[in-house]
Amino acid sequence: MVASEVYTRRVRRAQELLAANGIDLLILTSSVDMFYLTGFTDEQRERLMFLMVPRAPREPVFVLPALYETEARTSTQVEDIRIWRDGQDPFAPVLETLASLGRPDPVVAIDDVMFARFLLPLVKRARAEWTSAAPVMVTLRLAKDALEIATMKEVGRLTDEVMARAVAACAPGVEEVTVARLIQRTFGELGAEPTATLPIVAAGPNGAMPHYRAGDRRMQRGDLVVLDFCGSVDGYWSDITRTICIGEASEEAIRVYQLVEQAHRAGVARCVAGETCQAVDTAARGVITAGGYGPAFIHRTGHGLGLEIHEEPQIVGVNPQRLEAGMVFSVEPGIYLPGRFGARVEDCVVVNAEGPATELTSFPHGEILVV
Amino acid sequence: MVASEVYTRRVRRAQELLAANGIDLLILTSSVDMFYLTGFTDEQRERLMFLMVPRAPREPVFVLPALYETEARTSTQVEDIRIWRDGQDPFAPVLETLASLGRPDPVVAIDDVMFARFLLPLVKRARAEWTSAAPVMVTLRLAKDALEIATMKEVGRLTDEVMARAVAACAPGVEEVTVARLIQRTFGELGAEPTATLPIVAAGPNGAMPHYRAGDRRMQRGDLVVLDFCGSVDGYWSDITRTICIGEASEEAIRVYQLVEQAHRAGVARCVAGETCQAVDTAARGVITAGGYGPAFIHRTGHGLGLEIHEEPQIVGVNPQRLEAGMVFSVEPGIYLPGRFGARVEDCVVVNAEGPATELTSFPHGEILVV
Repeated sequence: MVASEVYTRRVRRAQELLAANGIDLLILTSSVDMFYLTGFTDEQRERLMFLMVPRAPREPVFVLPALYETEARTSTQVEDIRIWRDGQDPFAPVLETLASLGRPDPVVAIDDVMFARFLLPLVKRARAEWTSAAPVMVTLRLAKDALEIATMKEVGRLTDEVMARAVAACAPGVEEVTVARLIQRTFGELGAEPTATLPIVAAGPNGAMPHYRAGDRRMQRGDLVVLDFCGSVDGYWSDITRTICIGEASEEAIRVYQLVEQAHRAGVARCVAGETCQAVDTAARGVITAGGYGPAFIHRTGHGLGLEIHEEPQIVGVNPQRLEAGMVFSVEPGIYLPGRFGARVEDCVVVNAEGPATELTSFPHGEILVV
Repeated sequence: MVASEVYTRRVRRAQELLAANGIDLLILTSSVDMFYLTGFTDEQRERLMFLMVPRAPREPVFVLPALYETEARTSTQVEDIRIWRDGQDPFAPVLETLASLGRPDPVVAIDDVMFARFLLPLVKRARAEWTSAAPVMVTLRLAKDALEIATMKEVGRLTDEVMARAVAACAPGVEEVTVARLIQRTFGELGAEPTATLPIVAAGPNGAMPHYRAGDRRMQRGDLVVLDFCGSVDGYWSDITRTICIGEASEEAIRVYQLVEQAHRAGVARCVAGETCQAVDTAARGVITAGGYGPAFIHRTGHGLGLEIHEEPQIVGVNPQRLEAGMVFSVEPGIYLPGRFGARVEDCVVVNAEGPATELTSFPHGEILVV
């Protein structure tokens, strides 16, 4: 458990960014952003739960349905807690807080994942200049601190262990979904949380669909199998992909795998403070393009990782953002041949102040593993 | 797998409701509503994925990022699929579709769970009268059809089995989280999906927080333990709560349990076509109020269940909505004594055209179970 002073400090930093960005009020819904600032959240559902952070010296206001009252009072640092009950208008304390700013058209920054269910009524009932909270929250969360990195290294270690057990379970005749369930169960046994939905265990032609999950295909000799999964500890995620082969790999499969693996290494080598996100993408993509498979690499090279599986920074060909110490993101080039097979290799890295990045997972990938 | 004609029929019904409600275009994000109309969805993340349904005779348009193209073409009935790639403006095909309606201020109904990330730019870039898609989607999904009910009975049976195994694992010295993980693992073993987050296993004073999950408290003699969890099959959820006792229960705990259990039965007895949602709440709440614990029943009596764990109808004291055959919802009265203990009993029911409702779970609850 992180001490409440950590959250108080994060709120103060948020308030500084509000002032710097000309924002009067930040409104977060139940989300990882709420968790980042308070250590408290829940799934966003049908009941309004807002954390409102005005500029200093005003203090944050938590608007919550009654059933969260005890938890909010005992487990967050926020003192101004406003409860609403079934049958009451949950927007009333929100509109009061907006009015208390004393500005006719306040600039209000909205959580990127706030549901339309809450945002549309707000936009209709309040006068404000609405904007995205992302610039503030992304800036806050972009570089992970030492505590966050320690947690992500821990979940990375567990994830390597899960990959070892998952690979060991792959064999001719085994259904994809059997391995997918093993992955989820193993995270639980190791004290981590699996994802809500099944991970990717994609054999043969299913591997050519980057976001295929796992189905009833039985692994066959000659299948490439793409295993891609995430687990979390204390809210922080891992993300790993390996591609293995059942029985014997065809020459083309080996060649495709080698290109992907070289692309991965070329990308990771660029993950150095001062480089750019697009340089990482270009380095990885260049290997695959030079190998003649450029059009088959149909997605970005990577994405940020932390409290969310996909967050900033985006490792794409059009992102000039500089890499800074503490940034964590995936490097995951892939080649997809529809109807035939796919291959992808992924590790997440932490950018260091100096020298090469630290990879958070280290399950071997130098040569395609044949099981 | 449901045949694509089912989805085509659901889209036609949606289009009828659009016309009846004066709506020109329905825009769904990746959500259960998208799944309901196409059999296809994924988690809503940072990439725009919209299903747009205009009134007949216009046809639906699917806007998707490139990596979903193969899946969308092979597994949905939608023919007009518009792909966007990294670096392109994902709103371009959305704005084109809006313009193609040929109306200056079209009425556009927005998915309730669309993220602000997509809605705020849409509201800024397009001129329309924005409204909630809920009236249309809730009406479509409110009464479950025979196929949906069969699936929900199946997941209910599995959920009873999970409860039996979870209760058997409760004993003095066992950590809450151990049982919570067992619940998740057992769903997987039975071929169902558990929830993303840990279920509720709340011992002693933790049971007084209705949305507490599970932590490191070890169960002690005299603890009431609230077990509340959900699992899904083919996208459809179950929801069950039982309260048991470790060792021996105090007299007050037994009295509180009996009130809750009687309230549950009183509520279920009202779940008859033609009754109202508020009558169910009043029946359950009346028992607890008469027993002197009214203020300790701090939430609604129930919520709808289906593709979502919380959906319509709401079983609250201010909902005059009539119960209709095919509606599925929970009846879950509870009593919460902060710092001491809590008790809740929950089953979900299907309203029948005639006679009493069918309970989807049937694990015994007549007397408090002492383990």
